[in-house]
Amino acid sequence: MESLQQQIEGVVDSILEDYRHRRDIDQMDLFRQPDREIIIDIIAKLRRIVFPGYFRDKNYQVYNARHNLSMLIEDVMFNLSHQIALVLQGTGVEESQAQNQGEQICISFFGQLPKVRELVQTDLQAAYAGDPAATGNGEIIFSYPGLFAIMVYRLAHVLYTLNVPVIPRVMTEHAHSVTGIDIHPGATIGAHFFIDHGTGVVIGETTVIGERVKIYQGVTLGGLSTRGGQSLRGKKRHPTIEDNVTIYANASIFGGETVIGRDSVIGASAFITSSVAPGTRVSIESQPLRYRTNPTEK
Amino acid sequence: MESLQQQIEGVVDSILEDYRHRRDIDQMDLFRQPDREIIIDIIAKLRRIVFPGYFRDKNYQVYNARHNLSMLIEDVMFNLSHQIALVLQGTGVEESQAQNQGEQICISFFGQLPKVRELVQTDLQAAYAGDPAATGNGEIIFSYPGLFAIMVYRLAHVLYTLNVPVIPRVMTEHAHSVTGIDIHPGATIGAHFFIDHGTGVVIGETTVIGERVKIYQGVTLGGLSTRGGQSLRGKKRHPTIEDNVTIYANASIFGGETVIGRDSVIGASAFITSSVAPGTRVSIESQPLRYRTNPTEK
Amino acid sequence: MESLQQQIEGVVDSILEDYRHRRDIDQMDLFRQPDREIIIDIIAKLRRIVFPGYFRDKNYQVYNARHNLSMLIEDVMFNLSHQIALVLQGTGVEESQAQNQGEQICISFFGQLPKVRELVQTDLQAAYAGDPAATGNGEIIFSYPGLFAIMVYRLAHVLYTLNVPVIPRVMTEHAHSVTGIDIHPGATIGAHFFIDHGTGVVIGETTVIGERVKIYQGVTLGGLSTRGGQSLRGKKRHPTIEDNVTIYANASIFGGETVIGRDSVIGASAFITSSVAPGTRVSIESQPLRYRTNPTEK
Repeated sequence: MESLQQQIEGVVDSILEDYRHRRDIDQMDLFRQPDREIIIDIIAKLRRIVFPGYFRDKNYQVYNARHNLSMLIEDVMFNLSHQIALVLQGTGVEESQAQNQGEQICISFFGQLPKVRELVQTDLQAAYAGDPAATGNGEIIFSYPGLFAIMVYRLAHVLYTLNVPVIPRVMTEHAHSVTGIDIHPGATIGAHFFIDHGTGVVIGETTVIGERVKIYQGVTLGGLSTRGGQSLRGKKRHPTIEDNVTIYANASIFGGETVIGRDSVIGASAFITSSVAPGTRVSIESQPLRYRTNPTEK
Repeated sequence: MESLQQQIEGVVDSILEDYRHRRDIDQMDLFRQPDREIIIDIIAKLRRIVFPGYFRDKNYQVYNARHNLSMLIEDVMFNLSHQIALVLQGTGVEESQAQNQGEQICISFFGQLPKVRELVQTDLQAAYAGDPAATGNGEIIFSYPGLFAIMVYRLAHVLYTLNVPVIPRVMTEHAHSVTGIDIHPGATIGAHFFIDHGTGVVIGETTVIGERVKIYQGVTLGGLSTRGGQSLRGKKRHPTIEDNVTIYANASIFGGETVIGRDSVIGASAFITSSVAPGTRVSIESQPLRYRTNPTEK
Repeated sequence: MESLQQQIEGVVDSILEDYRHRRDIDQMDLFRQPDREIIIDIIAKLRRIVFPGYFRDKNYQVYNARHNLSMLIEDVMFNLSHQIALVLQGTGVEESQAQNQGEQICISFFGQLPKVRELVQTDLQAAYAGDPAATGNGEIIFSYPGLFAIMVYRLAHVLYTLNVPVIPRVMTEHAHSVTGIDIHPGATIGAHFFIDHGTGVVIGETTVIGERVKIYQGVTLGGLSTRGGQSLRGKKRHPTIEDNVTIYANASIFGGETVIGRDSVIGASAFITSSVAPGTRVSIESQPLRYRTNPTEK
């Protein structure tokens, strides 16, 4: 009978053999791949740039605001430009050019941070105004999943519009993991956006959302059918939500030609596959329910 | 053309300039804010106090139960009292008084831990009794998201009733992130509470839940309308669920005057906005569906 | 009045007293329990074995593929066999025998890794083919929650079929926490399985799923009633989904005798409690909605 060490050697041999099938999962060149952990760390640092007074660095205690910000910007610059260079190389860009492009994309990205911060400020105001349970800004910034998911989306969307592959989606999927809110970085979303509770929200790639829109947990803004698979790529598959619309919990709105007109209110659990005129309230109050006296429990 | 270093300096200047707008997000005084990471660490330590035999400390191997517990209590005392002092200062309490109040609140909080542990024991029993897939206590304590979310809620609720701002919500939102279960620390929940699967559950601030209640994934206990925003703060906006009620997956129950009478069973996906008499079974068995033979797929 | 130190001593005494009730939560023998953190770490290492070219080790930079793999296999062997031994001892197996059984179960588990990798390769293909928003394999492997949850399920299912207690569920509940997708390790799932978005998906213990099945967020494959509690353990309580079925967002399918026939499409939000013939499209297009002009908002 084989010793345990021999058995382990046999396992290693059989898995190395398995790596030789040249399938997608057998790709082995680790050092040319982006690093998911580093991208997640970049998000944490960007959050400290967006909210300079709320999230402390564990490693450094820096009292001088300029030193602190310079350190953060240089660190993100170094890491993000390198990650962008790696994904660009993955699309065929040559190495030295990729590093240069990565740096220039970072500079463009940083140039848009004040615009992102202005939008996040409106999102913070919308959260406070829209939620009777909110007691103040600190509570919202520290704990509301909606504000975090929207901030990550706004940052990732800038990279998406700068044609960075892979990284924007890794960023929004990190927020999805943390919050249960799945916003594709390709979606277009206006100011004063509020998502309350948020678990289960899905906002598809070609969704367009206006200003002052409010969405609750479990809302899907999705595509009607995906049987076309890759042939549908790039087509408008997801709805348009105009300004000042509220969509209550677990409502589903499907289709690239579906438009929810401004000032409308979509009731909880409504299922919508065609457009709704501006100023309409849609509800499912008439859901047929069956009531019986419960004979089996006391 | 500018060097990369000059461009980075320009970025730092423009963001420092952006911080001067005096908006909510421009607040920069890090050292007077509570620390979300420390609050999450406190939860991990409280879990080791609640379940002394299941979650090990990586840093210390302590065999003596009293030494181990003393270390945990002193650590939580030090950190939690400091975090409470910070949030109290945020509401205008003077610094030395805030520290003193923080310590006294901690002592009161610790005094209620045996009561919390007694409730958590009933929640553990309810999980085992209610889930045919459960094989034992260890499996439930190590892996069931419902038990974790309920335990964090029970701890946070004690702090909420002691009028601690911000921290209770940071605690329950951490559990929300980990489990997808969103229980506001202000809710009132009786013994033997079981949440199965749990993703998407929302239990609002003014919800009242009796004893031996069982809830499944996607259940909302929510407010009817939030258009009143901050003007609704403090009003009873969420339902009352009496003893021994079961609410199956994705059911929604809305409204501060809605009462689900004791011994009732609310069927999956039911949508309820008015009260249900005790001992009633509500179901949506009659949902109209359209069946077609599928011509496009083999 | 007591000093703070005296008050803390009083707290410690009262909690030690509370530990003497001999309830389930009062169990104190930490060193005979499995370790959730170690099990989660094992998942990360198994992911690096499954996808050798995507997830880097932070601690070691190893260029030689055999060295890297040997290190991973030996590490998982050591830790997983020890965790298995602990949970086997919890079921009454004697210590030296438990360690030996743990090692042999590990060897069997490793022997099935090539089969798991083959299935995960088909899942990756299904994700790319099924999602118009997917731009490539790297994006899917790094960021799609569905692929992660399915991979963890496939690994945990092997341990489940090898009769390992507790650990498989800790593994799938970790994936549930990260993704919002709750797949019980006892479920049976064929090749080319794709879950898109995924938050809120629940797949129960006795579910049987064929090949090329596609599922969206919020789908429940659940049991009709759980009032039987522990008396239902081991019975088929969850549905059977045949090959080539698509189930759109938030649909619910309940019952152990419910069979969704091959090539069927279940529309979003459909609620199904009885079998569907092969090749059927089920939809809720006729949901009654109420439309009113919204008088209160401009």
